[in-house]
Amino acid sequence: MELRKLLKKESSSKILFIVLDGVGDLPFKDGKTPLEYARTPNLDDLAKVSATGAHIPVDYGITPGSGPGHLGIFGYEPTKFEIGRGILEALGLGLEVRDTDVAIRGNFATVRYEGDKPIIIDRRAGRISTEENRRIIANLSKNIRQIEDVEVILCSGREHRFSLIFRFPNKVTPLAERVNDTDPQATNKEPLVPVGANEEAERVAEIARCFIERASELLKEEVRANYVLLRGFSVKPELEPFPQRYGLRSLCIAVYPMYRGLARLLSMDVATFEGESIEDELRSLKTCWHNYDFFFVHIKKTDSFGEDGDFEGKVKVLEEFDKLLPEFLALKPEVLVITGDHSTPCIMKSHSWHPVPVLIRSPYCLGGLSERFTERECFKGELGIFPSYKLLQLILSHAGRLQKYGA
Amino acid sequence: MELRKLLKKESSSKILFIVLDGVGDLPFKDGKTPLEYARTPNLDDLAKVSATGAHIPVDYGITPGSGPGHLGIFGYEPTKFEIGRGILEALGLGLEVRDTDVAIRGNFATVRYEGDKPIIIDRRAGRISTEENRRIIANLSKNIRQIEDVEVILCSGREHRFSLIFRFPNKVTPLAERVNDTDPQATNKEPLVPVGANEEAERVAEIARCFIERASELLKEEVRANYVLLRGFSVKPELEPFPQRYGLRSLCIAVYPMYRGLARLLSMDVATFEGESIEDELRSLKTCWHNYDFFFVHIKKTDSFGEDGDFEGKVKVLEEFDKLLPEFLALKPEVLVITGDHSTPCIMKSHSWHPVPVLIRSPYCLGGLSERFTERECFKGELGIFPSYKLLQLILSHAGRLQKYGA
Repeated sequence: MELRKLLKKESSSKILFIVLDGVGDLPFKDGKTPLEYARTPNLDDLAKVSATGAHIPVDYGITPGSGPGHLGIFGYEPTKFEIGRGILEALGLGLEVRDTDVAIRGNFATVRYEGDKPIIIDRRAGRISTEENRRIIANLSKNIRQIEDVEVILCSGREHRFSLIFRFPNKVTPLAERVNDTDPQATNKEPLVPVGANEEAERVAEIARCFIERASELLKEEVRANYVLLRGFSVKPELEPFPQRYGLRSLCIAVYPMYRGLARLLSMDVATFEGESIEDELRSLKTCWHNYDFFFVHIKKTDSFGEDGDFEGKVKVLEEFDKLLPEFLALKPEVLVITGDHSTPCIMKSHSWHPVPVLIRSPYCLGGLSERFTERECFKGELGIFPSYKLLQLILSHAGRLQKYGA
Repeated sequence: MELRKLLKKESSSKILFIVLDGVGDLPFKDGKTPLEYARTPNLDDLAKVSATGAHIPVDYGITPGSGPGHLGIFGYEPTKFEIGRGILEALGLGLEVRDTDVAIRGNFATVRYEGDKPIIIDRRAGRISTEENRRIIANLSKNIRQIEDVEVILCSGREHRFSLIFRFPNKVTPLAERVNDTDPQATNKEPLVPVGANEEAERVAEIARCFIERASELLKEEVRANYVLLRGFSVKPELEPFPQRYGLRSLCIAVYPMYRGLARLLSMDVATFEGESIEDELRSLKTCWHNYDFFFVHIKKTDSFGEDGDFEGKVKVLEEFDKLLPEFLALKPEVLVITGDHSTPCIMKSHSWHPVPVLIRSPYCLGGLSERFTERECFKGELGIFPSYKLLQLILSHAGRLQKYGA
């Protein structure tokens, strides 16, 4: 079944899609999850009249990264589409990626030399401070701007991590990714030499070898970060643009660079606004309300507190969101969706495979099956447990944007 | 997994499969759906001891037409099999379709002429009355019985619609369908000339061009219906006969021509009986009870009232059905199934994507999970939410007609 053929050409319905990153959780305090523990009277009222359920990001028992998590809720089957690690790292640092780019994750490492031969003694350069990283990257950036006809772009990450982009004069293909990681995943070994598995990748590997040589020369005097390891060579994935795929003028409202970058990969417009709070995002949403059909509002802190195991923090974000919910509702979207991209249980301090609660509010809901917007209550709902990448089909039909299938 | 290999050759169990067309609904009055609002003590008692759940006709969020809806509940994956629009229209008017036929949906239209060139000014001929339609079709039928070696069959539909069959001397293949619609989907345009995308289709197109020419000549004096537009060229789909597929001597008891036609497409026997009420269908069922294993009883009015947005009407049909339910039960089928082919919410006045409540009563049910046969109660049941085309597998196993899979 090709969804595209069912799309209605004309509809003015607006879809507000709020993603509470990593919202799903497990019992932590008094046997309650953050959603259960939080005082959320507005969410409770909404859940009572909404279609509720839970979605599975990748597959039963499979924990998704942020890439697959978001691809799923945007209707792209995450096992069919992949966002390379180099690309995701670059997006996370706010770098623009183009179709001429190969993006790579870098680590600073410490090596000793046996003659000319580098031997790794610390694969993370003693986890140098982000500040030290910035100083070193500034030095590398100044001295390696170009290798042959390839532009070199460097950006500091946290601690020993950095992002590296090789910008070629022409479009690259997925073949260009086929370069091996140089990290041997063990100390007391030589770094691996990057080699390409095909002609296009070998050109990338050639530039990488040259980059490593010049970088290690420049880093010679560093005590800890005197070498670079490269991983996750990847190109910008070919993803059908979201606005065309679904016929929706689409806007992303997000604070964190990775989500803004993901939205750009899908050709959504990305709102620029002052501030970092949910209130700031709401203000931006109000400003742009008349210019779009689909609004992806990304709230990051639920995930951050989950990753930190900070139950109280996660509860507080949920309560903060709940207080603002009436203002979101006041915009009167035809369809309001509240969900997450995956679960991030506080007791696990990491993403997890647990199904993510979801709520759809439209005039076409049965409702009456969940008392609150919590994991346990949503499992009782009319949407059941379903694959994340089916969510967008449901949203489109609630928005009156799909036609009947077959006569 | 090939179901056929699991079929037991011998069983005398009887399956009574009652389809309340479009039964699923949404809250309409006092927050209740028709199933919730209706007084249905017999259905309630039955639901308490049955396996309950809800099925999804095509996919999450996808609204099915009547064709895909019924294919699904008969175990044919509706995205793999298709019933062409011309065929479905013909079945709906009670026409027999053969494997030598190309069936086409026709519209009367109004054109003006620029010299010889027809220009459409009304694609629906001002929605002429069904009566006027009948007069015109009678005239066309009398005068166009045959084009070369192809028999021409015409039948009035409602208002400006009609059904047209070209009956060829020999079997046609699906290639024959590849003829374009002649409706340009806009006024002030010339009708499109039908052209075939391959040799077999071009032969069909040739007959169609000749039909259009002769029809427009005969319609010249008509004020409104002076032209014909043709759409949905289609041949009888190749569907494995239901009785062979499942080893079930199968009977259809239905009032509306489309469902009787669908059953014939699947090679079910179709009961003939007097009257149009559920009581009349029940009487027919009793008469035939000893001659078949599988009884498809189709009750249309639930859907009709849904399409009309007539909540009270839908409630009344459900109460009427409930009163007769003890008589259906008195036949003691080994397996009784009550469900719909899709939902038709009164507030939408159309088919919808919402999962359809289902109940299976056999000696092998858990039961005790649903208090009534309603949408909300069925969501709590042991069958969960599942694709419609899996329902027949469940029914077969409840009927003791499937063997163990694997050793």
